[in-house]
Amino acid sequence: MLNKIKASAWIVALGITATASAQQTKLTSYVNPLIGTAKMGHTFPGATVPFGMVQLSPDTDTLQYLDKGRYNPNMYKYCAGYQYTDKTIVGFSHTHFSGTGHSDLGDFLVMPTVGALKLNPGVATVPRSGYRSAFNHETEKASPGYYSVVLDDYKVKVELTATERVGFHQYTFPEATDAHIVLDMVHGIYNYPEKNVWTFVRVENDTLITGYRQTLGWARTRTVYFAITFSKPIKSYGSVNEKQEMYGGFWRKFNQKENFPDLAGRQLKLYFNFDTKANEKVKMKFALSGVSSAGALLNLRTEIPHWNFEQTVAEASAKWERELQRIQIDANQETKQNFYTAMYHAFIAPNTFMDVDGQYRGLDQNNHKAGGFTNYTTFSLWDTYRALHPLYNIVQQKRNSDMVKSMMAHYNESALHMLPIWSHYANDNWCMSGYHSAAVLADAIVKGTTDVDANAALNACISTARRSNYEGIGDYVKYGYIPTEKSGVSISNTLEYAYDDWAIAQLAKKVGRMDVYEEFIKRSANYKNVFDKDGFVKRRDANGNFLPNADLLSTHGQGLIEGNSWNYSFFVPHNPTDLITLMGGTKKFLANMDSLFTMYLPDKYFAETEDITREGIIGTYVHGNEPAHHVAYLYNFAGKPWKTQQLIRRILANQYKPTVDGLGGNDDCGQMSAWYIFSSLGFYPVAPGSDEYEIGSPIVNNAVFNLENGKQLKITVQNQSEKNMYVKNVLINGKALIGTAIRHSDLMNGGEIVFVMADKHSK
Amino acid sequence: MLNKIKASAWIVALGITATASAQQTKLTSYVNPLIGTAKMGHTFPGATVPFGMVQLSPDTDTLQYLDKGRYNPNMYKYCAGYQYTDKTIVGFSHTHFSGTGHSDLGDFLVMPTVGALKLNPGVATVPRSGYRSAFNHETEKASPGYYSVVLDDYKVKVELTATERVGFHQYTFPEATDAHIVLDMVHGIYNYPEKNVWTFVRVENDTLITGYRQTLGWARTRTVYFAITFSKPIKSYGSVNEKQEMYGGFWRKFNQKENFPDLAGRQLKLYFNFDTKANEKVKMKFALSGVSSAGALLNLRTEIPHWNFEQTVAEASAKWERELQRIQIDANQETKQNFYTAMYHAFIAPNTFMDVDGQYRGLDQNNHKAGGFTNYTTFSLWDTYRALHPLYNIVQQKRNSDMVKSMMAHYNESALHMLPIWSHYANDNWCMSGYHSAAVLADAIVKGTTDVDANAALNACISTARRSNYEGIGDYVKYGYIPTEKSGVSISNTLEYAYDDWAIAQLAKKVGRMDVYEEFIKRSANYKNVFDKDGFVKRRDANGNFLPNADLLSTHGQGLIEGNSWNYSFFVPHNPTDLITLMGGTKKFLANMDSLFTMYLPDKYFAETEDITREGIIGTYVHGNEPAHHVAYLYNFAGKPWKTQQLIRRILANQYKPTVDGLGGNDDCGQMSAWYIFSSLGFYPVAPGSDEYEIGSPIVNNAVFNLENGKQLKITVQNQSEKNMYVKNVLINGKALIGTAIRHSDLMNGGEIVFVMADKHSK
Repeated sequence: MLNKIKASAWIVALGITATASAQQTKLTSYVNPLIGTAKMGHTFPGATVPFGMVQLSPDTDTLQYLDKGRYNPNMYKYCAGYQYTDKTIVGFSHTHFSGTGHSDLGDFLVMPTVGALKLNPGVATVPRSGYRSAFNHETEKASPGYYSVVLDDYKVKVELTATERVGFHQYTFPEATDAHIVLDMVHGIYNYPEKNVWTFVRVENDTLITGYRQTLGWARTRTVYFAITFSKPIKSYGSVNEKQEMYGGFWRKFNQKENFPDLAGRQLKLYFNFDTKANEKVKMKFALSGVSSAGALLNLRTEIPHWNFEQTVAEASAKWERELQRIQIDANQETKQNFYTAMYHAFIAPNTFMDVDGQYRGLDQNNHKAGGFTNYTTFSLWDTYRALHPLYNIVQQKRNSDMVKSMMAHYNESALHMLPIWSHYANDNWCMSGYHSAAVLADAIVKGTTDVDANAALNACISTARRSNYEGIGDYVKYGYIPTEKSGVSISNTLEYAYDDWAIAQLAKKVGRMDVYEEFIKRSANYKNVFDKDGFVKRRDANGNFLPNADLLSTHGQGLIEGNSWNYSFFVPHNPTDLITLMGGTKKFLANMDSLFTMYLPDKYFAETEDITREGIIGTYVHGNEPAHHVAYLYNFAGKPWKTQQLIRRILANQYKPTVDGLGGNDDCGQMSAWYIFSSLGFYPVAPGSDEYEIGSPIVNNAVFNLENGKQLKITVQNQSEKNMYVKNVLINGKALIGTAIRHSDLMNGGEIVFVMADKHSK
Repeated sequence: MLNKIKASAWIVALGITATASAQQTKLTSYVNPLIGTAKMGHTFPGATVPFGMVQLSPDTDTLQYLDKGRYNPNMYKYCAGYQYTDKTIVGFSHTHFSGTGHSDLGDFLVMPTVGALKLNPGVATVPRSGYRSAFNHETEKASPGYYSVVLDDYKVKVELTATERVGFHQYTFPEATDAHIVLDMVHGIYNYPEKNVWTFVRVENDTLITGYRQTLGWARTRTVYFAITFSKPIKSYGSVNEKQEMYGGFWRKFNQKENFPDLAGRQLKLYFNFDTKANEKVKMKFALSGVSSAGALLNLRTEIPHWNFEQTVAEASAKWERELQRIQIDANQETKQNFYTAMYHAFIAPNTFMDVDGQYRGLDQNNHKAGGFTNYTTFSLWDTYRALHPLYNIVQQKRNSDMVKSMMAHYNESALHMLPIWSHYANDNWCMSGYHSAAVLADAIVKGTTDVDANAALNACISTARRSNYEGIGDYVKYGYIPTEKSGVSISNTLEYAYDDWAIAQLAKKVGRMDVYEEFIKRSANYKNVFDKDGFVKRRDANGNFLPNADLLSTHGQGLIEGNSWNYSFFVPHNPTDLITLMGGTKKFLANMDSLFTMYLPDKYFAETEDITREGIIGTYVHGNEPAHHVAYLYNFAGKPWKTQQLIRRILANQYKPTVDGLGGNDDCGQMSAWYIFSSLGFYPVAPGSDEYEIGSPIVNNAVFNLENGKQLKITVQNQSEKNMYVKNVLINGKALIGTAIRHSDLMNGGEIVFVMADKHSK
């Protein structure tokens, strides 16, 4: 079984240079990009730098819809393009999501080949049926900013690295007079025959290619521009357009199939031919831009003005090392691997979406210039508002502030006058529930980590939350909940809107706009309206009646998304005290909590649960999906913090393993990882928008936060052991913590937080 | 018959304001935009300003291909969107070619309607089958910069005017609670189901709409951006996307059919609803940009910052008056109508293709900023190098210089390193033969009318002329002609390349690069290689043999395009003396000339001749197509200038009439008109690239050129009459002309050229 591959095997794979493996202290050496690449993690193993625009990574299948309108059930496995169990690599594409449960991207697949030219990928089951190649994990190496593999069919060694906006390829070819580099612009993730809207390529000269790919997909109007340079002149080149265009008058004037530099059509594929000597390295720099091919060329020339591949590898590694150093932990080897791989995954997305000159493509499809901030995209907010952005509010404040400004830019460019819901590449795909940008903005402003105009941010939240024709908001305001007749996700939307409204109220209070506070604090109590008398959320009709025969274990047809009533009934992060009341008091609440984590979810319900493996479930608590991520901490509010501590240890141990299939569910752009980082350090942001964190049970021995304000925060864990899972005392700069909540200022002022652990819980 | 409609009828139609009709001296009053809108002229009647980006004009059919790959033979009639004999108007679109023989554009069809909403155009034969409306020429008015018509089905009066980049609509509605303005982004000229690549619309607020349309057609990668403002807020609005997109996840989050402001898809149509009072005027400004919707909005706000429709009409009229005043003629009424309508048609294209801030979309699909010139597009060079650009070299020197710079920008942005062949909207469609940009550049530089870098221009010409994989250039250089096996247009390409090579040689000589001169003057003699012993051009194979059984009358399958061997055998504009030799001496040459203009072209050959009416032919001389436009002047070179004079009078009288079907062939972006302008004034540029003009027979009484250098040139025609068609003497500033050639400096130095006419020819 894959998860039995020994940790030691990875260590070998990680030693990318003699220097890197020699320096034992490098935190990058604990990162294994292959973690999560089997089963449900949906991470990718390729080369990227922190928050970069380029994710240059192998794709191991062609990732197509089966046919018009019908998903290929296998396609879901390829959200990040790669599955560890596959035996062939189709090629290396430049854009990937990390850990998502729906997908897009996979732009600009490049594949070095030798021998007869093939322009179709072929199928995995038929060797050499296309340009894809067999490969072996023995030759595969993945570390932060570097990926390498040997393509067995071609005897080509592929090495990949990246800067923020440029992918850098180094191919070591055998001797050949028929070496090719294939550029497949039809390939994509979650592809289908009409996904390409347009492709455009110019062979500017024998070492420079520019162009773009425009697609309709999860992003509706998405164009990615590129500029490519080769280290060696092309011998010759050619192209096919797989779509027969109706108007083709201009094709008669030239032979446009071969050595024709000015190409456009819906489905372009190109190939570039080279002669190679034995072990000759052919290098390629592949720059991206959301603005223009001129922007891509500027990015290319600015970020990598040389051909020193090893230098870029070292710089990419150094960038990761710098980011990982933000939290230095002392822990056992497995925890270090889990922790730093989680840090790595937490710092992949959101992605830079701006050229080096500050230009970016806006939601209005115009090019804008960012005024004093880095523009980011890929906001998987339903996931990431929970712990990822709160994590950034401690260790990536500058970047989180720029993300807040990017969200405000999105708002300012939005014809709907809405903040992003789930946005990428100058589009909103409006995926999942809630308007959780509000929580991200409120959390940053309440914690004082951004200089964004707080009143403008509040106005953006209000405008979004009042968009009455979006997903039942009008009904939510009218009825105080969304009647089940009006929506298939009436309960989860009601609960999530209520939480977001609470966050907006906190922001309003912070800026002293009490009229807004009153409106939204009132709305934030709407969660009450979907709780039935028995303390569980259930579908309710417009007349106010709860629907009978609710199936509290099912995630389908019950007014919920990615969570059943058992999980969602705990979704009142902003008022656990009232939740306890709604559930019938502390005793019943505790009984429900215990049941959640112990009951056995029958197979029929497991089968319908999205995005997770069987291991992703504890009782019916689904850690692999997000709605209950805060729930393990709720024992704190019912006077049983030791149960939280017990449970956190259990989740940390069971849900995260340093193996290719070590993630129990989609990493979701770093949210799963952020949960691990917080929880392993001993605390968690139950309700972003408040300045409090609930304590759990740290598994690190010690930790040091190197904060951007120049201060250091030490986490010292006394009596740490597997057995000593209970927190006896917490001392903040020597002062005993009363209760279970640490405040944001306790962290940011620096100093020391001491967790005194014990093998038995007190009280 | 349409051409019998009396000139007087037009005069009524032209009186757009009391002021305009009262001022007899306004030259705009002689312009009738409806000339050429029936049959083959392919002109459009709508509103435009000189060299403007917007051509806002009624379309009278839906202009679709019949089905995949097959032309609708009727579509050809609709190159400019309008045919005078039609009874319905589909709507008013914003971009049109003037006089072309292939087409594209028709972007952004707008139609005001009243009553039940219709989003399909319907068919002309079934009244009220769609949004189209019946109309009547009685209510139709067209004058420079203004068009008006009443839509009979809706009782809506439509008035249109324009600035360079903005179309201004004024609709006078009846009282209605169901008035609509339909915006059909599927409509287009030379349309087909997959022509739209993408459409994108944002309803920014209740008076502002932005977006774009991206198409594949004659231009391969073409995007036109827009910004619309209404004078009155929209009551409500909605949309359909006629193409079912495969991925539509985002459609579930909103009802996007109605009042949804953020739209995208392949085939969008929108409608905007209004309540109107009786005779209420609803106005709309519709700005275009090739750069971005932000650029369109900037154009809109800069060019028309008010709602005074009449002011814009007056300004548009004044712009035309200013341009027409460049040549003031004294002539009879019909000649004045022909002349100033020709001037109008000569000054519609090339079109401004640049935003008010100097940004334009380049061939590389990047946005560029023009450095000190106005960027132009729509270069129908196979036509316009002959007389239109030479005309500009006299009366539009600044603009022609900017056009030269636009061609150089095209060259600098070209992956092929070629000057434009036939270019529009940041694309080359490579239509027709030759590389006639070279002739335009050479003509401007030889005549000293541009400050473009002459050496850079020469380099661009050389690069273009050496593009060996373009239309047989490689074979042309190798064999000295294009072997018939290699090309279907082997003769016409050989002839036209030879002429262009001569033009390049002139440019090389001008800048003193004699090595280039030698190369190209040698190439320029290649015309000899396609002349058979009998003095006619014929297909020749790679072994040097002429193919037997040539059909000298046919334009198809004979190695020629838009001309038969009889016409093309005279295509040696740069060396008529040698042509006379090739044809066997003066006597045989003259006999051939006489035959050309007198023989009867059998019907079967007429049927296959493109782009012309029967009236467009004199003998087998086809004035409606361009290859023989210089031929009537060739008698000058054989000592029979009086035959030229006779013939010019005949062509002027027969081929140009001030009626809707008054043009014998496509106006071809002003080339037909430029021929008229030159010839009516008494001279013509037989070989652009030389500084000489051959004299013909003026039909004006007198003329004054108001030159940009501040000088005036008077053309005085003594003894002018229909009978006195022969030129007895020409006096240039009092000095008798020897020979038949006037020099460019004779014009530009100002002063007076006197033609002394007589009813008999001397010698």
